[in-house]
This record gives sequence, C-alpha cells and structure tokens, in this order.
Amino acid sequence: MGAETIRCKAAVAWKAGEPLSIEEVEVMPPQKGEVRIRLMATGVCHTDAFTLSGEDPEGVFPAILGHEGAGVVESVGEGVSGLQVGDHVIPLYTPECGECKFCLSGKTNLCQKIRTTQGKGLMPDGTTRFSVNGQPIYHYMGTSTFSEYTVLPEISLAKINPEAPLEEVCLLGCGVTTGMGAVMNTAKVESGSTVAIFGLGGIGLSAVIGAKMAGAERIIGIDINEDKFALAKKLGATECINPKNYEQPIQDVIVDITDGGVDYSFECIGNVQVMRSALECCHKGWGESVIIGVAGAGQEISTRPFQLVTGRVWRGTAFGGVKGRSELPDYVERYLAGDFKLDDFITHTMSLEKINDAFDLMHEGKSIRSVIHYKEA
Amino acid sequence: MGAETIRCKAAVAWKAGEPLSIEEVEVMPPQKGEVRIRLMATGVCHTDAFTLSGEDPEGVFPAILGHEGAGVVESVGEGVSGLQVGDHVIPLYTPECGECKFCLSGKTNLCQKIRTTQGKGLMPDGTTRFSVNGQPIYHYMGTSTFSEYTVLPEISLAKINPEAPLEEVCLLGCGVTTGMGAVMNTAKVESGSTVAIFGLGGIGLSAVIGAKMAGAERIIGIDINEDKFALAKKLGATECINPKNYEQPIQDVIVDITDGGVDYSFECIGNVQVMRSALECCHKGWGESVIIGVAGAGQEISTRPFQLVTGRVWRGTAFGGVKGRSELPDYVERYLAGDFKLDDFITHTMSLEKINDAFDLMHEGKSIRSVIHYKEA
Repeated sequence: MGAETIRCKAAVAWKAGEPLSIEEVEVMPPQKGEVRIRLMATGVCHTDAFTLSGEDPEGVFPAILGHEGAGVVESVGEGVSGLQVGDHVIPLYTPECGECKFCLSGKTNLCQKIRTTQGKGLMPDGTTRFSVNGQPIYHYMGTSTFSEYTVLPEISLAKINPEAPLEEVCLLGCGVTTGMGAVMNTAKVESGSTVAIFGLGGIGLSAVIGAKMAGAERIIGIDINEDKFALAKKLGATECINPKNYEQPIQDVIVDITDGGVDYSFECIGNVQVMRSALECCHKGWGESVIIGVAGAGQEISTRPFQLVTGRVWRGTAFGGVKGRSELPDYVERYLAGDFKLDDFITHTMSLEKINDAFDLMHEGKSIRSVIHYKEA
Repeated sequence: MGAETIRCKAAVAWKAGEPLSIEEVEVMPPQKGEVRIRLMATGVCHTDAFTLSGEDPEGVFPAILGHEGAGVVESVGEGVSGLQVGDHVIPLYTPECGECKFCLSGKTNLCQKIRTTQGKGLMPDGTTRFSVNGQPIYHYMGTSTFSEYTVLPEISLAKINPEAPLEEVCLLGCGVTTGMGAVMNTAKVESGSTVAIFGLGGIGLSAVIGAKMAGAERIIGIDINEDKFALAKKLGATECINPKNYEQPIQDVIVDITDGGVDYSFECIGNVQVMRSALECCHKGWGESVIIGVAGAGQEISTRPFQLVTGRVWRGTAFGGVKGRSELPDYVERYLAGDFKLDDFITHTMSLEKINDAFDLMHEGKSIRSVIHYKEA
C-alpha cells in the first residue's frame, strides 16, 4: 500500500491568465475513502481553459487542472472496498456515492455528496493532497488530471475494463460521454428521428456519434466554421449548414427544410443566442432541445412562452446525464465492441511538458482534442 | 336531419372592447363533415375576455365567442359517421382528426388539421355558419359556445356519457381539463411528489385537484390573493403561500421549505416573471416546470441556462395535453365516478342575457367560473 508521499511532475496553474508551469509536486497518500492513481493520459478541455482564464467564478489558485483522464490505481486508503491496486479507472468530476438524495432519486447523475468541498478545490475532509515545497496546491473538479499522480475519493472513480487503451478512453471522462450521453441518455433519441446539433467541436461531434448510434435518420450539423463539416459527415451527419449563408434566422431555415422542425436539438457551444435557436428549430408539439454548452456567468436564455405551450421542451444535461460508476463502464465496453471510435477526436498528442501547446491549439481552433501522454513509470 | 337554418339567441361580440350584444342569429345547417349542436351550458373563461379586450392578435370581429360548452347534437352533415342526433358532446377548440402528422405522432394533442381556418374564425371550407340579417359573423376557437346553437366539424366534438350533467361538465371543455391534464397528462406527477401551483384561479385549482388525484404528498398553492386559500385547501392544497409576505424571491422561499425545491411546478397565470419563479423553485436534478398560463403578446421568459444544465426541465401544455375525442370522455367518466367534483368551481350561474355580468364578475375577481345556462328548447 502506498503509504509514502510521492514526488512527481504536474502542470500547476499558479494564477489565472498565466501559462501552466511544470513543477515537481508532492502527492500525499490517499486518506480514508480515497484512492491515489497514476495517470496514463488526459485530454485538455475547454473547461480547463475557462477556469485558467479567470472567468470561472469558482476557480481557485494555485491548482492542478485537468478532468479528462484515465489511469491505474497506485494505492488505496482506509475503507476503500471497491477498488484495488492495479485497477484501471476513469476519474469522475461528477461522483456517484449511491447514498445521497440525488443518487437515490434515480432521476439524475448529479451526486451532491462532496459538491461543497469539490467546488472549493478540496478533498472531502477539507484539505488538499498536493503541495509544492510545502505550499498547498488546490484540486480541480475533484480530479486534477494534469499530474502524474492524483488523489480522488473512491466515489469519484469508474472502474473500467483493463483492455481499453487509456490514452483513448480518457476522452470518456468528459467530452465524448457528455455529447453521446446527451443524445442517448438525456434526450433518449429514438430511431428514425431528425436531429439538429449546434456546434461541431468535440461535444457536438460526440453528439453526432450518439445520434447515429441511436438510429437518427437525419442528423443536421450546424457550425459557422465549414472546416468542421467533413469530419461531422464522416461521423454521421447527413447534412451540414452554415448559418452565415442565410439571411433568415437559422431556426427558420431548419424548420423549413425539416417540414416543421426537428425532433431533438442539442446546443454544444455555450452561446445563449444559439440556445434559443436550438429550442425554436424544434417541431411544434414534441420537439425537445437539450443545452449542453456552458454559457458565461450571468448570461440568460430567453424565448416566448408560446414555444413551450405549443409542446416544445427545454432541458439541459451535465456529463450527458451519465452516472459515472454505474454507467460509464458500459460506454467503455461499447467502445471496445466497436460501436464507436475515439481516434477521430484526437488530433494531437504530446507530453506533459508541452501542455501549454494544447491550450494554444485549442484557442486557435486547430485541435478537437489534444491528449497528454504520461511517460511510463 | 336539420336541413333548415335555425334562428336563435346568441351573444355577439361586434367589436373589441365593447360588451357582448344579445342578438337573434341565423345558424346554417351543418355542411359536409360538420355537426350542429344545441348548447345547454357554457362557462365564461379568461380567454374569451382576452379576445374581447382586443389584445388577442388573432381576434376577428364580429364574432360569437365562447369555448367551454356542452350540448346535444341537433343535426349532422353529410359524411358524419361518429355522431348522431341526440348524442351528448363537448366542443373542442383543439380537435382530434386522427390523421394529421400531429395526431399520428402520438406525442401531442395539438391536431393541426383545421388550424388555419379556425384561427381566422372560419369553418374548414373557409366560410361561416353564423349571420345576423345577412351579415356573416365569425366563429371563435372553432366552438362559439355563446349561442343557443353552434356548428362544428365532427373532429371538434367529444362524445360523452349522456348521464353527465352538461351544466357542470361544460367546464371540462377548457379550464378544468387544462389544469388537471397538465398535472396528470403533461407532467405525469407521481404519487408522493411535492408540487407547487402558482395562481389559484380556475386553472390553478384544477391543477390542485389533479395533483391530489395523482397522489402528490405536498401541494403548495401560491397566490397574492389570500381569499383563494380556503378553497385551494379544501380541494387538496396542503399549504398556501402569499409571495407578498416574504422579502426573498418566492422561488428561494419554496426551495428553502422543500429541502431543495419541488418535483413539479405549474404556472397558471400567464405572467412571465412567475414562469421564471416556477422554474427556479424546482429541485435540482429533476424538477419539471409546466407553463399553462398564456402570456401577453411579445413577452418573453428568461432564466440562466445553468438552471436547465443542472437538471430542471421547462415545458408547457395546451388543454392539459389531453386528446379531446379519445381522452376527454374518460375525464367525464372519472367525474361521474366521483373522483373529483366540479361544483366548487361554479360560483355563479345565469342566463345568456346576463353574460356581460359574467365578464364583470371575472374582472372583479369575484368568480371562479360563471356558467351560462341555456333555456330548454
């Protein structure tokens, strides 16, 4: 059992708006109910960039960011019963305790067991496991995957099939599951449906895959960057539209070409105007729109209530509505069974030392996902 | 068969903003696919007042208003196969053709078969069946129940059990079904749920009844007029709240007293600010809010998308999501079985000649429903 503090490499965000800094950090042993894992890979996601920018009101510094990882259990703390050394795991920023009101409801994946401490960058006991030269470093989203080693509560780890390649299935820790789950789990898109997906980044493309897996007959991708259309079509979009090519509002265009609107729409950007378009392109009587994107602080969505009174439904989703410990392992199994592929998402790979390049590529719109590969121990 | 034009009494709305005028009108025989009925009773609803005020952008004049009636088939036109003379019926402002895309979807009650002509105050063939001294009078909501006789398409009539008292079950033609259906049909409230109902007029009280029938454990009524609390409690509300007694926003009050929010909420007023409160008092993770009230033209609802991303659902309903011909007769059966009562809603009854008094009582907040009783032929 790993009773020792580990010294390893991590990318530390010392303050908002500055590049990450590669540091040697100390990672304490896991405490009661906790697990220490060796990360093998981690994706770099817009949410990491959002927090690093300083716009995230919950952001605390200094912190180790990262939340889209995969790794192997290195040691377990007292009372951990469901995981053992060597297990392959995906960290969960949305845990699943199985005991709280939310887990027991059966209606949501938003376990609230450790929300308060997680939101403050702390382990459930109110302290951190990371330090640099004795200075505590905060956790991030309960995961902190930009480190060779990290500590998480047991309830924040999904145990997965050890045959899955960790440098690919790490993407199931956030973006891909979010998009696919929104379609299959939150909206429950039926075979034969017509679907509109706004924004063809990593989340939107994952939604395209989910729609294809669900048997949607028409999958309309919408983006102002037409460079994204080829991959969207490869993954299953039946047509792609650039709103800039039309004078009418895009919702009117979509209603026209679909004989009244789509059965389901998904907003994968975080733009409140697009959220409105996504709702209003839905079919009267039954169309449902799902908000996946995260809008800026204080921004609001609006529409006429008539849109809802005439049968449209407005909902949202976080992590695709997927319950991490009980349902995420099945996503890994479906990946292994060949139901969907992940390599199309991975446009760049690099070592931890080059992690700032991943942020640059994202900001320049050149990457879908960059994946950090950690060196073997 | 009634091949003759009938001369009878009706309340005519000659122009917006003026009282109704009792006139002798001519009612043509029913044409192909149409049915002429003798009204026995009709409720007077806020929607009638809204159109009479001139604020309804779809309102056309002169017209015979009224949409909450019950009557007996007097004659049938060519090709009518499902109804015969003497059948007891409730007029439907939302028809059910069983053939259009909407009916065939199985997902909505918003049959669109005759929507265009109905919205213009016309029968499906583009003409009217009413006239006064040769001047055509428009229909209203496809029903025009403020007349001793009216003509409707067969698809706009629900055939009901003839044992039901027409002067009570007329209320199932609009308000009561709208409120009860929103709870039982649109939201599908489960036994044991916590429910908030905003606005304790006829619709809201019907929603209270629906919530009680659905087995809701806590039914919270909200209104700024505390005079309405006694009846709400009699019908099933477990507690009533006046937002004016609190400094905090009412949604915060409700979240506090319900340990996180309600499972379902219903907006029964038509106020876009209240619609926001109704959404935001819902429980994170699963709370659903249903808009029943109709807002003024051009008004918009708003919220932060975070409300939806964290699992709340925003939907709406028209006529309680109830399919008029296939489902409304069951509401009548449940009424006859004693599952709910209607007499609490009927605060006033009067003859057609006194119909303007019904509007006055409504505007003064003195009535829940006034019901016009037509004289026996």
